Amino acid sequence: MKSREAEKLEDLSKIFEEKSDVALGKLVKEVENQTGRRVEILKQSATRVGKAHIIGITGPPGGGKSTLVSKICKELAKEGLQIAVVCVDPTSPFTHGALLGDRVRMLELAKFPNVFIKSLATRGNLGGLAASTAEIVQVFDAFDRDIIIIETVGVGQVEFDVLEVADTVVLVNVPGLGDSMQTLKAGIMEIADIFVINQADRPGADESVKDLRMMINESQPKDWKPPILKTTATLEEGITELILQIEEHKKYLQQSGKFKEIRESRNLKMFKEQLASRFSEMVESYISADESIQQDIEQVKRGTLDPFTLAEKIGEKVTIK
Amino acid sequence: MKSREAEKLEDLSKIFEEKSDVALGKLVKEVENQTGRRVEILKQSATRVGKAHIIGITGPPGGGKSTLVSKICKELAKEGLQIAVVCVDPTSPFTHGALLGDRVRMLELAKFPNVFIKSLATRGNLGGLAASTAEIVQVFDAFDRDIIIIETVGVGQVEFDVLEVADTVVLVNVPGLGDSMQTLKAGIMEIADIFVINQADRPGADESVKDLRMMINESQPKDWKPPILKTTATLEEGITELILQIEEHKKYLQQSGKFKEIRESRNLKMFKEQLASRFSEMVESYISADESIQQDIEQVKRGTLDPFTLAEKIGEKVTIK
Repeated sequence: MKSREAEKLEDLSKIFEEKSDVALGKLVKEVENQTGRRVEILKQSATRVGKAHIIGITGPPGGGKSTLVSKICKELAKEGLQIAVVCVDPTSPFTHGALLGDRVRMLELAKFPNVFIKSLATRGNLGGLAASTAEIVQVFDAFDRDIIIIETVGVGQVEFDVLEVADTVVLVNVPGLGDSMQTLKAGIMEIADIFVINQADRPGADESVKDLRMMINESQPKDWKPPILKTTATLEEGITELILQIEEHKKYLQQSGKFKEIRESRNLKMFKEQLASRFSEMVESYISADESIQQDIEQVKRGTLDPFTLAEKIGEKVTIK
Repeated sequence: MKSREAEKLEDLSKIFEEKSDVALGKLVKEVENQTGRRVEILKQSATRVGKAHIIGITGPPGGGKSTLVSKICKELAKEGLQIAVVCVDPTSPFTHGALLGDRVRMLELAKFPNVFIKSLATRGNLGGLAASTAEIVQVFDAFDRDIIIIETVGVGQVEFDVLEVADTVVLVNVPGLGDSMQTLKAGIMEIADIFVINQADRPGADESVKDLRMMINESQPKDWKPPILKTTATLEEGITELILQIEEHKKYLQQSGKFKEIRESRNLKMFKEQLASRFSEMVESYISADESIQQDIEQVKRGTLDPFTLAEKIGEKVTIK
């Protein structure tokens, strides 16, 4: 007779073979909530990934990203592709605002069975948000999704961390960038592969395209020259062209070998994070069991012992054989 | 005869006793550039800190923060206080922009020998910026500065990390917050202890104060109710009142026990970071010396071995005794 544990793992393996939407929803929730099966789910998915094109869509609040994502999904869904979306909301851990805007619009996608949508909030832990996103994307990928979209809002470092998983980054702005230009310059220009001026029916769209073009020409030249597109998501204008450019970028990544590189460095990063968290757990449990180190830590807190000396002392107790 | 090493350490100890400005500049540079003496400098300073009031001054680009900081310094310097300023510029690691604006204005402080100014740029490593700031602040503190000001620009998560060291956070805005309000909501409201509307001679200052008041009233009530002040730094208006409020906040921190708490958790954090970096070094050197683990890592990269299993395998080789 098999142990209950072994049976459970067999179940999980079966779930990954069957790949039902219900199962996907359940697994993603378990990963998000960090249940006891999280590690096993990630283990199972880690060796099943690699096919999906992962697209990050970001930009300042109020740029119509949700609508744009809806329209992209709709178009792709009609082509029969399997799509998954994760909406990441790195807003204040305190006020729980809703910067990503009206998710109700997403409801129009409900009629497409091949579009799976997941919202992810911070729960007060910004640091963990990027890790959660990466894990959920991995499960999506293992469930054979062709396209995975990460929708996030451009409000800080978290944005960069979240987008690290993406193959193709689309930066969405609106006409009249003006004041936000300076903030834009702070790093995001360099990670965007495609620029979009959404709400292009508003005045100033062409000027914004021109401004962006100038900024791109001023920055470091790259193999891939980021195109600038105009869309009006509410009217479904420019969506086909945007999808075309996203596909162009994927081709570029594949032909240049970057598609493979991105996956390799993603796997390596996950490994290093695992290793780091495993060690920190080991050390935490060692520390909490040792009375004399507890006293040393109190001294460090009071400022009568320096943190380096104590870290060295604990380091000397560790051996890797 | 003493070893050269021991002599050097004695020198360092002497430097910390003498506390000259020239020495301070040299030590801070060594910490920033991570020379071989960095750890020893931090060890020496760790047990000498605790007196300084650490003030973070932040806000969106273009709000006149540099001028405001200059004027605050001037006023405090006249009172005979020892002041140190660190200007942290978390702009793009790629374009090396100068978001913090015209540092030339800082030159007006050159005539005050009791004001020490240090600029800190990213050099492509945003993650290390907050750590560097904390370390430099520690050296300042060990050199008996009464007031340490951290000036940084509000463009993301780095801002929060950098400000974690501060006792008192001053958020500087300009009249007509308008569009930037939504971004403001993303966390900064909760960490600000004092709000400033600078350039208050521009139209809309009173409306901005009203808007801010409303936002503060909507957020979680706290023991300390953040005041909102109007300043016009260029005309030196409102500076005295701002300094008064900063002092009020320090009193509040001391009376509530938070001043001590902040220092304790800062020391604890530094210890944990030391421990983590020490372990990661140990593991890296172990990994790089083991051929079979190198092969496992290649498998992880290619996606044929999951990162968790490998992390577990390495974890089993570690003992803490």
